[in-house]
Amino acid sequence: MKARVTVTLKSGVLDPQGQAIAGSLKSLGFANVGLVRQGKTFDLTLDETDPERARAAVADMCEKLLANTVIENYAIEITA
Amino acid sequence: MKARVTVTLKSGVLDPQGQAIAGSLKSLGFANVGLVRQGKTFDLTLDETDPERARAAVADMCEKLLANTVIENYAIEITA
Repeated sequence: MKARVTVTLKSGVLDPQGQAIAGSLKSLGFANVGLVRQGKTFDLTLDETDPERARAAVADMCEKLLANTVIENYAIEITA
Repeated sequence: MKARVTVTLKSGVLDPQGQAIAGSLKSLGFANVGLVRQGKTFDLTLDETDPERARAAVADMCEKLLANTVIENYAIEITA
């Protein structure tokens, strides 16, 4: 079983990396760029056959390691 | 208009960060974790109304800045 976790900053949390990227894009001539927010993805392979158990395990992984839940949100996609 | 860019390593490219995360997850007791591959996401707001023009601009941004196309792939999702 495969899972993709997407971790993004909660709204309202300052994103200096995103701001730097937006500035670089503008200096490269992309004038129509507004806000840029950077996040992370984790593609996991799991030795699990039950999608619900896989989702629960991945959520636990997010809570314990993959996301800083004080400032980040996470979204989980499970694929067979 | 909004766009999400997901940048992931090409298959075959070594991912030491992913390996370190897999090791940490195992040491936290998640024995059923196999491969872990880490990537990046960029959520962009664009001052653009035409989805095709937005997609072309974002692809150009990826080629020039957001992705290292030698070792990375990128996927673009455009949302209104």
